[in-house]
Amino acid sequence: MGRLAWLLLPIAFAQAAPLALMPMPAKVVEGSGFLRIDAGFRVQIEGRTDSRLRAAVDRFTARVARQTGILLVPGNHAALQVVCRKCEDETLALGEDESYQLDVSSDGASLQANTFTGILRGFETFSQLIAPGPAGFQAPAVRIEDQPRFPWRGLMLDVCRHWMPVAVVERNIDAMAAVKLNVFHWHLSDDQGFRVESRKFPKLQQLGSDGNFYTQAEVREVVAYARDRGIRVVPEFDMPGHTTAWLVGYPGLGSAPGPYAIERKWGIFEPALDPSRESTYSFLDGLLGEMASLFPDPYFHMGGDEVEEVQWKRSGTIQAFAREHHLSNSGEIQAYFNRRVQKILQKHGKMMVGWDEVSGPGLATDTVIQSWRGGASMAEAAAQGYRSILSFGYYLDALQPAAVHYRVDPLAGVDARTVPHILGAEACMWSEYVSAETVDSRIWPRMAAIAERFWSPREVTDTDSMYERLVPISRWLEWTGIQHRSAAGPMLDRLAGGRPAGALRVLAAASEALGIAGRRNLNENASRVPLNRFVDAVPPESETVRDLEHAGNPELRAVFTEWAENEARMKPMAEGNALLKEVLPLARNLSAVGRIGLKTLDYLDSGQPAPEGWAATQIVALQKLEEPLAQVRLAAVQVVRRVVSKIQK
Amino acid sequence: MGRLAWLLLPIAFAQAAPLALMPMPAKVVEGSGFLRIDAGFRVQIEGRTDSRLRAAVDRFTARVARQTGILLVPGNHAALQVVCRKCEDETLALGEDESYQLDVSSDGASLQANTFTGILRGFETFSQLIAPGPAGFQAPAVRIEDQPRFPWRGLMLDVCRHWMPVAVVERNIDAMAAVKLNVFHWHLSDDQGFRVESRKFPKLQQLGSDGNFYTQAEVREVVAYARDRGIRVVPEFDMPGHTTAWLVGYPGLGSAPGPYAIERKWGIFEPALDPSRESTYSFLDGLLGEMASLFPDPYFHMGGDEVEEVQWKRSGTIQAFAREHHLSNSGEIQAYFNRRVQKILQKHGKMMVGWDEVSGPGLATDTVIQSWRGGASMAEAAAQGYRSILSFGYYLDALQPAAVHYRVDPLAGVDARTVPHILGAEACMWSEYVSAETVDSRIWPRMAAIAERFWSPREVTDTDSMYERLVPISRWLEWTGIQHRSAAGPMLDRLAGGRPAGALRVLAAASEALGIAGRRNLNENASRVPLNRFVDAVPPESETVRDLEHAGNPELRAVFTEWAENEARMKPMAEGNALLKEVLPLARNLSAVGRIGLKTLDYLDSGQPAPEGWAATQIVALQKLEEPLAQVRLAAVQVVRRVVSKIQK
Repeated sequence: MGRLAWLLLPIAFAQAAPLALMPMPAKVVEGSGFLRIDAGFRVQIEGRTDSRLRAAVDRFTARVARQTGILLVPGNHAALQVVCRKCEDETLALGEDESYQLDVSSDGASLQANTFTGILRGFETFSQLIAPGPAGFQAPAVRIEDQPRFPWRGLMLDVCRHWMPVAVVERNIDAMAAVKLNVFHWHLSDDQGFRVESRKFPKLQQLGSDGNFYTQAEVREVVAYARDRGIRVVPEFDMPGHTTAWLVGYPGLGSAPGPYAIERKWGIFEPALDPSRESTYSFLDGLLGEMASLFPDPYFHMGGDEVEEVQWKRSGTIQAFAREHHLSNSGEIQAYFNRRVQKILQKHGKMMVGWDEVSGPGLATDTVIQSWRGGASMAEAAAQGYRSILSFGYYLDALQPAAVHYRVDPLAGVDARTVPHILGAEACMWSEYVSAETVDSRIWPRMAAIAERFWSPREVTDTDSMYERLVPISRWLEWTGIQHRSAAGPMLDRLAGGRPAGALRVLAAASEALGIAGRRNLNENASRVPLNRFVDAVPPESETVRDLEHAGNPELRAVFTEWAENEARMKPMAEGNALLKEVLPLARNLSAVGRIGLKTLDYLDSGQPAPEGWAATQIVALQKLEEPLAQVRLAAVQVVRRVVSKIQK
Repeated sequence: MGRLAWLLLPIAFAQAAPLALMPMPAKVVEGSGFLRIDAGFRVQIEGRTDSRLRAAVDRFTARVARQTGILLVPGNHAALQVVCRKCEDETLALGEDESYQLDVSSDGASLQANTFTGILRGFETFSQLIAPGPAGFQAPAVRIEDQPRFPWRGLMLDVCRHWMPVAVVERNIDAMAAVKLNVFHWHLSDDQGFRVESRKFPKLQQLGSDGNFYTQAEVREVVAYARDRGIRVVPEFDMPGHTTAWLVGYPGLGSAPGPYAIERKWGIFEPALDPSRESTYSFLDGLLGEMASLFPDPYFHMGGDEVEEVQWKRSGTIQAFAREHHLSNSGEIQAYFNRRVQKILQKHGKMMVGWDEVSGPGLATDTVIQSWRGGASMAEAAAQGYRSILSFGYYLDALQPAAVHYRVDPLAGVDARTVPHILGAEACMWSEYVSAETVDSRIWPRMAAIAERFWSPREVTDTDSMYERLVPISRWLEWTGIQHRSAAGPMLDRLAGGRPAGALRVLAAASEALGIAGRRNLNENASRVPLNRFVDAVPPESETVRDLEHAGNPELRAVFTEWAENEARMKPMAEGNALLKEVLPLARNLSAVGRIGLKTLDYLDSGQPAPEGWAATQIVALQKLEEPLAQVRLAAVQVVRRVVSKIQK
């Protein structure tokens, strides 16, 4: 794309760029000078060490080598001294000390922390400090004192609607660690799949996963991988609803007679575990006991959301059971079920986590409510003595701009009594319209902004600053191995049938993919519909369009010209190509947007006034051009609308 | 970049694109209709099968899923039937039958071969046939009968000058298999490193590798990985020269007293094994015996190139030994050494391969000469009864255009007597200026064109057709996991310090990196100089510039405008950035080239004649602007020169 932004803003560049840190540390005092990062860069561990810390140093050093392209030479002088005060403690517990102190001067750097986890957090900050400068790669002199605002900072990944192989999980764990998140919430079972090997009940994965499940060895590998990066793994086995995949192998657990088949659609479905039979609880005792030993974290998520009551209402035995136990409605039946499940979890040494719906009287006070409904629900949970984590406002599958999530504070509107009950928050990546190929781009870089909300002081709220730092942070994240920026290129090339895809790239960069609400697919085989369309290669938020916010007219003219030509360039590429058929109308719209932009610039640049009402007509036209097509919205419209509005003034 | 080529050439697009096959099969008969590739696509093995074939089917199916983005569903109808006639034979031998026959119709496809290897080759052809069409992804109806021209089609990779981890090796093996190469020549020892674990002589890797070596388990893994993909692995341990790294741990093997240190410079160095001592040969017997059991292929490369005679000349004992054995010069001493090494290799069941220099009387007739010097050398080898493989003309480190290598025929100028001695050819990737990060882009996609030269009939020589197919093939190769196209983006972002790097991308796309001859680095620590410069992110051959060959004036004007603006866009980005300092003069030149182009278009488009001599002056200016800077050549000059020459006519 032909963008000239920097030509027109030389002063912006002459200024010292702000430190591209995210999450912004609690306290940053900038010094003068810088530490040079060259082939001699080395980390020296002072005092006690262990294999875990040495491995972390090796990973950190390899990252520095990767992000700078410098071939580090063993045995040179140390440039970063590490002091880990209590590194012998290997537990990774909610609320552990994650603070660290980092000092960088031209002579060297030091990183001090009380815990191994604190050291990990400091390494990430140091890595973010490294940038090219007057003498090559360098880290600026700075003193940083940092600790998190909330002890529970999570990302939930749904591996059921679409399967996510171990490599996807691990690279996302690396990226999580890079922005100091500390809970990986693994949504492991749902109507569309049961994704863990059970040795006690092997038909769960054999019949409920299409062969896509994690072996127990893989689970242990991922848990260890996360632990080494200071991340707890909280598994979720969603029940009593969202259990269709369990019932394929074990129909006797259901509240209605089988047979059951793996669900291929999206939505809320009828199948639910039978809460009235003791055999259900003995099964759960077996399964949860097995899973409890596989997942060492003391917190265990039992889901509990979106229970459809129809099977329970239709069942004579369940209704009889309810009367016998004085359970007057399905909510009370579910509450009974929850209490039973909690007892099983307690027996296996676990504290229960559940979605809003599990909240209700009679649960242990160590219960944690994950709130996808928000404030009132958290207040209610707190009133009952439970703790909460907030997910309302952090649903990544909505594909909203980073700023939308960034503005949601976990404590906004929370009354003083509730505050002590709030452990933190979690972003959620539900995977109806997300595959292993696209998931990274649906989580990152927006997740980095959310991570700042979870870690940094409440006062860190400047959205412009967030976006300014997100540009380099998004690029820096690539060195962790995450593919949020790299995956789209080959996807667009694929759509173009191997031809140069420049026009498609221009269109993609001017577009934003709609989230789940704009993408409802009620196909019988929804889970089998390929996610290889244009929308899947389009980012949730257009960095290109955001960049144009401060562009001058010459740059805008170049961009608008490129947009205006898009349809003509796309047409031959789309010829005889079914995959591009839906894209052509979008290209036509982009060209129309570009032409309006060019005409507007003609008026502005020439000083010749536009005819009466011309601008108003264009605004109406732009509104029409902004209507989604092919599940994509033209972000380009925002830019032209702003230019047209200058004429209106 | 703003390119409008296709806008101006709609007819080119309306035509059916040629099949993007590379190497072009021996016989292709196009039919009518196509086979649809959808979620039901499945491979059915007819007749006998084994785990190796099933694994190959799984890999192939996973690739189809990846390249189409389709989530394949187990259990649907078979779309490709596979018949492997003699799949029980697990050997992978020089000259084995690699032929296959592939029939695709709208009803289904069948792939038949005599061997497992033939099936693998056919899978790659089928995968290349898949492209988006009127009904989604499809493979055109076609009948293909194919077999290779040469039985030895290799790629040599130097892992000594720069270390290449297992992941790099394996992804290159996957890409090799994709274009039907069948020999991976692994250059494992040199002055700068000894890269394999020896258990008999552990100081080889302990002191000679900086810790960068393959364990024996890793070697076995790579050999098995290659075998499963129909690729033989031929190891090279270069001797008696190029052995500095051996002598660090075992100085007693040298022809001069030690101590020795790992070589950090590039070039030809003095250290050489002592050919006069029996202890040298007993060491080699031990080492080669150990390595012979690690590498199952019957061919074993002992290097033998570039032996510097100075240590031998200075050594009294070696000179006395030479007199005693009637060896009248260093060449004869080396020939003696070669014969001894060959005997050792024979004892361990291996046939010897060596570079040109080993050629000479007295070797076994099963010796294979790898010719980096070319024709005369091969004729001489043949006269002595030896076989040859050609590498002259296929040195990838020269970073020449694909067409240059493509035009080199292994049999060009070879007389009829020599022809039967020529087994095939190998491209060589020496790694002085190539790292794990950049190596893919220095091999691919040019290697695909070379692979066509090695596989396809001699008559397949149309360079235009090769380039036309190379565009989609380069993109298709990405699905193998090779990073030749994806690695440069993050490298440019790194240079730009995390800022949007659009201007840098424009410059890189208009540039071509110089090869080894333009990049001599005589630094004492040459091997430690980072390969993170602009040149390292620039391709050897500019696809962008090649695309512009047929562009019309409006498109050229857009491109020239972008070039003309490049310096101004680069300047603020380069401010205070040491890594971009060397790039600015190049950006200045690109802008000058763009301005000449624009002025030329003004004359051409307006019909107003240019002043007398104007064009000639521009040609001179362009020549100056084409002079390399920062080890990069501006390919953009070619485009503007062509436009200016229109004025001269």
